[in-house]
Amino acid sequence: MTSKTNAGNYFEDFKVGQVLNHATPRTVTQGDRALYQALFGSRFSLQSSDEAARAAGYAQSPIDDMLAFHVVFGKTVPDVSLNAVANLGYADCHFMKPVFPGDTISTSSKVIGLKENSNGETGVVYVRSNGRNQRGETVIDYVRWVMVRKRDKAAPAPEADVPHLPESVAPEHFHFHEGVNFKGFDLTASGSPHLWDDYEIGEKIDHVDGSTIEEAEHMMATRLYQNTAKVHFNQYTEGKGRFGRRLIYGGHVISLARALSFNGLGNAVLVAAINGGRHVAPCFAGDTVFAWSKVLDKAAIAGREDLAALRLRTYATKDRPCHDFPGALEKGYDEGVILDFDYWVLMPRR
Amino acid sequence: MTSKTNAGNYFEDFKVGQVLNHATPRTVTQGDRALYQALFGSRFSLQSSDEAARAAGYAQSPIDDMLAFHVVFGKTVPDVSLNAVANLGYADCHFMKPVFPGDTISTSSKVIGLKENSNGETGVVYVRSNGRNQRGETVIDYVRWVMVRKRDKAAPAPEADVPHLPESVAPEHFHFHEGVNFKGFDLTASGSPHLWDDYEIGEKIDHVDGSTIEEAEHMMATRLYQNTAKVHFNQYTEGKGRFGRRLIYGGHVISLARALSFNGLGNAVLVAAINGGRHVAPCFAGDTVFAWSKVLDKAAIAGREDLAALRLRTYATKDRPCHDFPGALEKGYDEGVILDFDYWVLMPRR
Amino acid sequence: MTSKTNAGNYFEDFKVGQVLNHATPRTVTQGDRALYQALFGSRFSLQSSDEAARAAGYAQSPIDDMLAFHVVFGKTVPDVSLNAVANLGYADCHFMKPVFPGDTISTSSKVIGLKENSNGETGVVYVRSNGRNQRGETVIDYVRWVMVRKRDKAAPAPEADVPHLPESVAPEHFHFHEGVNFKGFDLTASGSPHLWDDYEIGEKIDHVDGSTIEEAEHMMATRLYQNTAKVHFNQYTEGKGRFGRRLIYGGHVISLARALSFNGLGNAVLVAAINGGRHVAPCFAGDTVFAWSKVLDKAAIAGREDLAALRLRTYATKDRPCHDFPGALEKGYDEGVILDFDYWVLMPRR
Repeated sequence: MTSKTNAGNYFEDFKVGQVLNHATPRTVTQGDRALYQALFGSRFSLQSSDEAARAAGYAQSPIDDMLAFHVVFGKTVPDVSLNAVANLGYADCHFMKPVFPGDTISTSSKVIGLKENSNGETGVVYVRSNGRNQRGETVIDYVRWVMVRKRDKAAPAPEADVPHLPESVAPEHFHFHEGVNFKGFDLTASGSPHLWDDYEIGEKIDHVDGSTIEEAEHMMATRLYQNTAKVHFNQYTEGKGRFGRRLIYGGHVISLARALSFNGLGNAVLVAAINGGRHVAPCFAGDTVFAWSKVLDKAAIAGREDLAALRLRTYATKDRPCHDFPGALEKGYDEGVILDFDYWVLMPRR
Repeated sequence: MTSKTNAGNYFEDFKVGQVLNHATPRTVTQGDRALYQALFGSRFSLQSSDEAARAAGYAQSPIDDMLAFHVVFGKTVPDVSLNAVANLGYADCHFMKPVFPGDTISTSSKVIGLKENSNGETGVVYVRSNGRNQRGETVIDYVRWVMVRKRDKAAPAPEADVPHLPESVAPEHFHFHEGVNFKGFDLTASGSPHLWDDYEIGEKIDHVDGSTIEEAEHMMATRLYQNTAKVHFNQYTEGKGRFGRRLIYGGHVISLARALSFNGLGNAVLVAAINGGRHVAPCFAGDTVFAWSKVLDKAAIAGREDLAALRLRTYATKDRPCHDFPGALEKGYDEGVILDFDYWVLMPRR
Repeated sequence: MTSKTNAGNYFEDFKVGQVLNHATPRTVTQGDRALYQALFGSRFSLQSSDEAARAAGYAQSPIDDMLAFHVVFGKTVPDVSLNAVANLGYADCHFMKPVFPGDTISTSSKVIGLKENSNGETGVVYVRSNGRNQRGETVIDYVRWVMVRKRDKAAPAPEADVPHLPESVAPEHFHFHEGVNFKGFDLTASGSPHLWDDYEIGEKIDHVDGSTIEEAEHMMATRLYQNTAKVHFNQYTEGKGRFGRRLIYGGHVISLARALSFNGLGNAVLVAAINGGRHVAPCFAGDTVFAWSKVLDKAAIAGREDLAALRLRTYATKDRPCHDFPGALEKGYDEGVILDFDYWVLMPRR
């Protein structure tokens, strides 16, 4: 009679090249879309309206890219990060196929790097995770790395193997859904007159609005994704811990920042790729989240006249409006910054 | 490079006759219905059961009338009331077509009146808003007026132009969905034995139950409608403001009052029209909402033997049960009253 | 002009043999599934994935058994337990048909027992409740008993009539959905390698994780089921009452315990029957719920090689982890226990 409870993997359980097929395939539905709407209040027309989606060549409105990301990500938690100390970063994240209500998402991960920390108590695990739909098509593929506890401090350190990760995803690697065209995109429906051509490299946009997070909200969101990380749900244990309270899933702040970014980036119809992301400081219930974005780069897409790409660096803050654009300092970050997120969005062009 | 952020319209931006085509068409789904159910707990059988709806001649169960109203209303906020000081009233609201899961709703508004206030700092804007489905059919049409800030106190006042608004919607203007008939409506399924014939003009009904509102609930509801009014979401800013806290969307109280009214008006299957509505006092998280209704009028409908109309005045209170029917005084309102709502419902008759 | 408000039934209103046809048929949708997911975070693959369900022979993924139970139960509240002092127990609960999105559920109850308490102020009412789908097929059938107030202490006591209830549901009475077969059930997708054969009678499983409940969560869940019991929603009144706060619906704790039990019972694909259940102590917002289970019995099912049954006794606690298996004492319960739940689950076998 063995223990029936999943204790999660520890650092010494991971081997480079190992493949983890994660549990709980998940059929995404209109119910998930509605909850995501209620939790983040996004207003991008493509994800809000079947009519707007059909006009662009979709059969129906796809779900929000970040909702798809969270569903893919959530499945990795029980195998990858149940014993994690910290979620260190994301890179090389490709959004390859839209997800529609009715699609069933599964995720597997491959261990692509390992490096024990000098304290001998933890190590960094790098995994490439691959989310697929019911036809086996990849919908999202990305790398993340987490700091994981060792079960046994005396266990020998593996040879350090740190993968080379691209600083950003190159636009020639973006994927486009077949038959989709944003020429003539309805700017009245989208609510913004500003197209790709109107943005300049270096431009800063304050997204103005702030949104306060409640415990019930971040827990409902995180359970929706079947993300089981204990720190988000258990006040009894967390109340005795490092922060004295439940920690909000970092992805919640990403989704909130993306929704807030509508005010200033209303035609950023799709997320094409995530180049990198860091959760700079923890976020708790009661915090009010603000965001601003800087245009890092612009890229035309070979063969497409309807769409082009903006590389954005979006910062989120807590309890600090962003009119003075708080961000990265030479060392560390301005007071209040909680997220530093580097990604590519697609936007219709003139 | 112009500012990409929507700052909303100020009083001097509005002209009588101007048409505002609002952003973000929204496909309503079973997910929205479920969230509305979870937030308000309504029990009207027509909106709860496809079988009850089919028995009355619908293809499926329509969504709650007030959910449709909030979706239509929400779209107007970024253009009409982002700089509003107060939402002053509603009138002449017609419910013209049912909304079903799968329908996509858009809204446009026409400015029908303007009147600057004597302080020169604000003015009242009257708009007629029109919500339509994907076939261009009007689902809801109504007037509201809001007090909006001026950008520049020195801007000249427009000629005052206050529209004539009907005191109530006349029953001959009610709209009925084709093929629908409530003869033989199932009173076991509806849960109330009381039909139109059983109500008397002047009758008062205490809806008895009270419902406490949480921050997560009103914010989720208001985001579901894509209503972006800042006062509902941002504790950082509101904490420094007039009330020291987030203000609950007035429509949340209307929906709660309608749901509570089931206890006493269980066969009020549809809202036909809103004659007028006033948010008499603000409502905050932690408040417990109660409601009672007075039958103001009864009207048979020409050509229909299955249904007739009750004109109701429903009051909602906070932290005050309604057994003593608190309401309007000669001047002002009884302590605790937060909503004074005048509308027509349709009810099967014997 | 009679009162239009439902005051609920009092003890003297019930007669043995009486049938109550409850109001508000309810069409269950993907929206309900998503909300249930967001509120409880369950990860059983059969209820999460249409693909997993199809592999087992279902047309689509059925909703969670306990969600179906709560919808069936909710309808009984306005007629059976609006004036209840306490929900005393459940027994002989059969899960007879799966519920799918699109099904419409109705409930009726038959009074099967009555016993006035010696204080003359309350009595115990036993009802057998029957939940049916739109085809009139029973989906869930169960007995519960509640302590209900008398309207008039002087009303004569009925002859005591206490029904005989089985100590547990016998496996030969379990129902199986036609065409369903769990042979070859995907254990990678389910996330657990442990099948029926691997569990031993007497085995204890600590489900490890804890989940803190918020006011918004339990109220949203309970409204989703159209359960109208006042004690869950009204802080104004409850704040002056016995506990000074809103009481969480006992079924919320059952659902949370079932979701937590995934960690250790990941292949417990279906609930076949509830033998009994007691809410040992009240649960309030802010409490963190933990759970553990003991295997009471194992039963093969005649004619089935794919599935067999485990009889479980699952205890839930508040603010007390379960590594030391707190449970029933000779008299009463260990500190922190809130639920004692005896039921049968079905699990694939080797």
